[in-house]
Amino acid sequence: MSTIKIAIDVMGGDHGVITTIAGVVHYIISNKEDHDVFFNLFGNRLDIENALSKNQKISKNLYAIHHTEKVISNDIKLINAVKSKDGTSMCEAIKSVAKSESDAVVSSGNTGVYMAISKMFFDMIHGIDRPALMTLVPSISGRGNVGLDLGANMECTSENFLQFAIMGDAAAKAIFHIESPRVGLLNVGTEKNKGTGTLREAYLLIDAVENLDFVGFVEGTDFLMKTVDVIVTDGFSGNVAIKSMEGIMKCIASLYETEVRSSLYGKLTYMFSRGILKKIKKIIDPGKYNGASLVGLKGIAVKSHGSANSIGFSNAISVAVNLVRSNFIKTISKSIENRI
Amino acid sequence: MSTIKIAIDVMGGDHGVITTIAGVVHYIISNKEDHDVFFNLFGNRLDIENALSKNQKISKNLYAIHHTEKVISNDIKLINAVKSKDGTSMCEAIKSVAKSESDAVVSSGNTGVYMAISKMFFDMIHGIDRPALMTLVPSISGRGNVGLDLGANMECTSENFLQFAIMGDAAAKAIFHIESPRVGLLNVGTEKNKGTGTLREAYLLIDAVENLDFVGFVEGTDFLMKTVDVIVTDGFSGNVAIKSMEGIMKCIASLYETEVRSSLYGKLTYMFSRGILKKIKKIIDPGKYNGASLVGLKGIAVKSHGSANSIGFSNAISVAVNLVRSNFIKTISKSIENRI
Repeated sequence: MSTIKIAIDVMGGDHGVITTIAGVVHYIISNKEDHDVFFNLFGNRLDIENALSKNQKISKNLYAIHHTEKVISNDIKLINAVKSKDGTSMCEAIKSVAKSESDAVVSSGNTGVYMAISKMFFDMIHGIDRPALMTLVPSISGRGNVGLDLGANMECTSENFLQFAIMGDAAAKAIFHIESPRVGLLNVGTEKNKGTGTLREAYLLIDAVENLDFVGFVEGTDFLMKTVDVIVTDGFSGNVAIKSMEGIMKCIASLYETEVRSSLYGKLTYMFSRGILKKIKKIIDPGKYNGASLVGLKGIAVKSHGSANSIGFSNAISVAVNLVRSNFIKTISKSIENRI
Repeated sequence: MSTIKIAIDVMGGDHGVITTIAGVVHYIISNKEDHDVFFNLFGNRLDIENALSKNQKISKNLYAIHHTEKVISNDIKLINAVKSKDGTSMCEAIKSVAKSESDAVVSSGNTGVYMAISKMFFDMIHGIDRPALMTLVPSISGRGNVGLDLGANMECTSENFLQFAIMGDAAAKAIFHIESPRVGLLNVGTEKNKGTGTLREAYLLIDAVENLDFVGFVEGTDFLMKTVDVIVTDGFSGNVAIKSMEGIMKCIASLYETEVRSSLYGKLTYMFSRGILKKIKKIIDPGKYNGASLVGLKGIAVKSHGSANSIGFSNAISVAVNLVRSNFIKTISKSIENRI
């Protein structure tokens, strides 16, 4: 097997180099059996060496440090970030894939900037106007469902929704190995007359695609259950949906913690129920699904959540590795080019 | 104390007359001490009498039946519903408030139609362009936060957001009796450059309002926690947020049930933990918050969730009664007219 090379934007994310390097080390240690993944680390050499020294020692054969001076801050304006992109850890990591020196890039930097720079260096798949941020969203089965767009495009046309549906269908086939993924379009109700004019137009466009199992509009209450494999939405609503779910889970966890700590009865309850709660958490924990990829581009760019911890960042690396291994770009390009 | 008269659209909702009447009966029985609420029931007389006979007997002095022949179905097109509104249970119930024969109306019928017809019979509060659907959304404190819009306006201008913020502020003052509610605007990130142009414009407009504690953009992960009292959003995103939270809670409940039923250990866990889980459910259960009101109108129109059960419908009645008792329209009108 040939080596898979992953470019890491070490400086991105809320916690920066400490977390990303801990994530890389965590990935290497938890995937000891695989000797086929090599890391191109883009960022400040001193910071990287310092962070590496704080973690379990890893072989120097598994990574190369590419020193960069500049960092794209999380609250920079898109236009300024793009203007001053050259020499930043994010841009150099992306370029490394464009120059075929890496097979995929992972960053937890600003999503909008990441998408804009990726679009400058990667070609679009024929027929796709705008890349979408795709990830697995929690599902009751524990497998997850393909969700897109989850934050790249704040406002979408009906054509964008159509393209997301086709990309999601192709992705679900590649990821879940199922023949006919059920595709749903997120709306405020399941009736055909619900929502915006754009969504009603998108309904008609998607419904007309041959060999695509379109189940119609689905609501936020449904898509975790067993009704769909792919959930299509705009980047704003997708982001709101995912974060609201995270919010209520955090809220439940916090209330539970307060309760079990407040009495002996609580402590006993905790001892009794932690097995079951752990099992449930494992199924729906959004952290497990960290690692969204920008689909629609002829290059693999994976986005880790800005606030992800090292395990989350390690998951994002896994997503990138799996996409490279499954020859994702080729498969999805073929499926889309046959249709659009 | 003078009698509060509530007009009920008996025929609306997914389960129709059976649930709405059971809800009215449930309200009356659980509020035995209050003798000041009277119900004007609008719907098919035979169906209503039949439904009443299936419930605990209530005094005939507490209600009047107003026979209507027509019903607005849930999947009707807005324009057709408005054209054929006269003589429907929903329209007659709304009219009864407009004619001051009732103090508030409660319906679980189609939201868009309910808003459109309400707007035809109620004047708007001066300075408000479009009514918003306002409800309490779950919060970690158990008190709930004021949320608007949660489904009335699919697409909003920055001016709409400004008006929602001012109405939400006034509502939170009236409902929570706090002096300076913290108002947040839902977005995909907290940084000022996040989201759509409309939202960024709304940020500036709301930030410029004097004596309004605007905390800026908030994310779906935050608004359950202690950071805001009012959450402002458009009807599409608000609906998606609420339903996604409901979805993940249903999912957790379902996984938990499967687990505790599957083994003796599970059954013991259930016995041990049900006290705590019940407590948590009580704090965040969305059913508890059923009953959204259309704010911005000079009339109290409360919307019950289409799929609410009789207890949910009874909660929606409580919301209507409380709004009447607190002289909500007068308070909110005054607060808004001073500002816009």
